[in-house]
Amino acid sequence: MAEPKQDRAVRTREAILYAAAEVMDEFGFAGASITKIAERAGTTTGAMYFHFKSKEGLAQAVMNAQPETIVPRLESAGLQRLVDITLVWAWRLQVDPLLRAGVRLAVEQGAFGLQDDTSFREWVQIMEGCLNEAREQGELLASVRPSEVAEFVVGACTGSQLHSQLTSGRGDLPERVVRMWRLLLPGVAVPAVVDRISLDVERGRLR
Amino acid sequence: MAEPKQDRAVRTREAILYAAAEVMDEFGFAGASITKIAERAGTTTGAMYFHFKSKEGLAQAVMNAQPETIVPRLESAGLQRLVDITLVWAWRLQVDPLLRAGVRLAVEQGAFGLQDDTSFREWVQIMEGCLNEAREQGELLASVRPSEVAEFVVGACTGSQLHSQLTSGRGDLPERVVRMWRLLLPGVAVPAVVDRISLDVERGRLR
Repeated sequence: MAEPKQDRAVRTREAILYAAAEVMDEFGFAGASITKIAERAGTTTGAMYFHFKSKEGLAQAVMNAQPETIVPRLESAGLQRLVDITLVWAWRLQVDPLLRAGVRLAVEQGAFGLQDDTSFREWVQIMEGCLNEAREQGELLASVRPSEVAEFVVGACTGSQLHSQLTSGRGDLPERVVRMWRLLLPGVAVPAVVDRISLDVERGRLR
Repeated sequence: MAEPKQDRAVRTREAILYAAAEVMDEFGFAGASITKIAERAGTTTGAMYFHFKSKEGLAQAVMNAQPETIVPRLESAGLQRLVDITLVWAWRLQVDPLLRAGVRLAVEQGAFGLQDDTSFREWVQIMEGCLNEAREQGELLASVRPSEVAEFVVGACTGSQLHSQLTSGRGDLPERVVRMWRLLLPGVAVPAVVDRISLDVERGRLR
């Protein structure tokens, strides 16, 4: 039986998105030609323009796919979940082209004329959700505002991965994330929770 | 009396550096033509190639000039000096083309094929100096390693300015820096010092 048209369209769109991510991770936005992406996806440039109106639109879709590479892998709750997001993210950035390209494009977007903070806002919202849960569970210091911590962690992770990229090709990023939390937790969590949160760098590795 | 040749060369080099910063801050690396920069500097492209061997070399010089836009403005010591570096930086980023272009290029450099971590390493070294001084003055918690804090603050500031750039054209960066320190200080400084350090956002404004 033939595959329903709609399913095929979804699969084609996904293949294009992943091909674009692979090519943009490797060559950056400027070096990622539409032809190269279509070839990698095993489709036509016509199909590409059916699903994404421009190369910029494709880059935006790649940038904004970041959370879906992480969130389905999480099992913990509250502050531990926030820590786990950043640890899983640091490990997945070693291997996942969709995440790698998304982060690269979000950082370099100014160079090709984009100014899209959607992925930043989505990460802030996801992290704020963890922090609100942490508050309900009594994990946070009274002075802490979830939105401010979320904003700061998103910025700190963005810059730390760039620094790590320049110095170690991102190899030291998981350790950098652990050090970030050692510094941050005392200003965020009540003392009993600081002791309880696991900062084992291996937590994020196998998800 | 004619100006000595050497002084003139220094002045020309500086004029080119500032012109490059202005043009690269406005148009990014790709949009900053050598002709446009030479015109802005009131010099020839020949003079440009005498002082900087390529547009990449010029971009690197701009990136690496960041600390000299901040450090001469500082008066404090130890941990307060570290806080002041970041506050002066956040305010100067609103107005100083050399700093603005340096930060923009350092973040976007992957898009034009550079991978130069010199400016990151210089910031880390400067901040580590403040933290070593803070340690001698008994300001730091025993668990704190100056090099790790310096690495983290450089990364966190880099990412925070990008986030701030995307959401407010960097207008909210000074406030973001204050919030960073409110979160970080309890994990870095002994309690009496946490209370003593001034996080008045206006500290950095007029330097």
